[in-house]
Amino acid sequence: MTTPPGHVSIVGAGPGDPGLLTVRAWHRLREADVVFADGLVPDAILALAPQARRVSVSRRSAHDVPPAAVAALIADAAALGQRVVRLRAGDPFVLARGAEEALALAEAGVPFEVVPGLSSALAAPSLASIPLTHRGLASAFVVVSGHAPASYAPVLRALPPDAVTVVVLMGLAQRAVIAETLLDAGWRHSTPAAVVVSAGWPEERHWYGTLGGLAEGEPPIDAADPGVIVIGGVVGLADLLDHARARRPAEPARFAQTAGAGRWARAPIGQE
Amino acid sequence: MTTPPGHVSIVGAGPGDPGLLTVRAWHRLREADVVFADGLVPDAILALAPQARRVSVSRRSAHDVPPAAVAALIADAAALGQRVVRLRAGDPFVLARGAEEALALAEAGVPFEVVPGLSSALAAPSLASIPLTHRGLASAFVVVSGHAPASYAPVLRALPPDAVTVVVLMGLAQRAVIAETLLDAGWRHSTPAAVVVSAGWPEERHWYGTLGGLAEGEPPIDAADPGVIVIGGVVGLADLLDHARARRPAEPARFAQTAGAGRWARAPIGQE
Repeated sequence: MTTPPGHVSIVGAGPGDPGLLTVRAWHRLREADVVFADGLVPDAILALAPQARRVSVSRRSAHDVPPAAVAALIADAAALGQRVVRLRAGDPFVLARGAEEALALAEAGVPFEVVPGLSSALAAPSLASIPLTHRGLASAFVVVSGHAPASYAPVLRALPPDAVTVVVLMGLAQRAVIAETLLDAGWRHSTPAAVVVSAGWPEERHWYGTLGGLAEGEPPIDAADPGVIVIGGVVGLADLLDHARARRPAEPARFAQTAGAGRWARAPIGQE
Repeated sequence: MTTPPGHVSIVGAGPGDPGLLTVRAWHRLREADVVFADGLVPDAILALAPQARRVSVSRRSAHDVPPAAVAALIADAAALGQRVVRLRAGDPFVLARGAEEALALAEAGVPFEVVPGLSSALAAPSLASIPLTHRGLASAFVVVSGHAPASYAPVLRALPPDAVTVVVLMGLAQRAVIAETLLDAGWRHSTPAAVVVSAGWPEERHWYGTLGGLAEGEPPIDAADPGVIVIGGVVGLADLLDHARARRPAEPARFAQTAGAGRWARAPIGQE
């Protein structure tokens, strides 16, 4: 036990696969007395803290728990000397309300640490065999929130067409509008595009197509699913890279402590 | 031992702190027969594979080993049945030549997996208490390579001023030119900016200042150091968040250095 009583960690859980947790996140979970988790963290990760009380502060619930309310719960637990983990899908500081909770903790005088996690903005493309940059194709990438045009349109309209990789989080419902925004700005219909659904989860799947296809509403999926859209020439490398993918060996039992963890070894696209 | 003979993993080592390795990376290192590492991976991480032969294919060496040559070495080792880890600082698919090596392996018919790592593009801001997005400040961020104007200028000139967080990797030497590019495009001199030097390493340090300060050559540092530049309103949140940081268990204290008009701050570096 190295985590002192009353310690508060805001921990990024990564995309969902327990193997993609950081070592520090794993340690904090093992030593937690209470875990406040949002609904996008899978059971296979929560199972790494079987000793901890679990409190759901779900993003998927009809009524999201406001950052100040979550911070108050965390402060209460810390005041009792409990080791607190606030577990957030992906990275706490990327397109989440992690900073709002952290600011609320700061205002309440509660010390905390932040353990960064793999954001699905970067992990989802990687799992789908898409490098975000590649010599001659893109030396920059942009990550936008796709939930509303006010968030993404000013940026996407401004980008030099077909010169940057675009990653859209929370944008499946807006995929056609997002694609139209880029096409209107001069991007080619034939620009490669991909959608990574449920990256890092057992139900992960990948769609590869074009920007023109996206504009027509492809792929035919439930827009409520968590998904990442990737647009740019680098998506065209996925085919070559994907076919060379090795079968992933199972994680050793030492980390795969739950019945479900083995399923996570069966990762992207037809391994195992 | 669960990694089969001849298995090849292209592994992201994260920013340098062993606690920020993924669990899967940790396992691959523990079971590796040979590790091909670049010069930006610290000994503390290489020490997790004491049983492995280490081959340096350093990015810092005068003569970088070309991707095809590295791929050939990897193929040779795999053909002998060795468990191979190709360890790259950060994430293999973000502003690195990881995809080039992967394509060379694919061409050679060598199966491989990619284990994503924490890119310093996201981890360095987090370690410096900077959220990349925050309600009302930025709902998007851009990551560019700062090694040459051809890489960053077309993107930076196009961005809507002060509406996006900008992250620059490998840009310390060009920091004044990069800042001038944004100022010319209409960004404010007073826009908060930060430089995170050696993120995740024991010598990590942070400078907080303004875009105007960057344009004047601040901070006074060795441009050969690995560093990440962060520009945007979100940098202004660091002060509040940093003061609330908990002391990380078992971490050594480090103290502020002062230089120039901006300010150096203590880096929250720790050990597991």
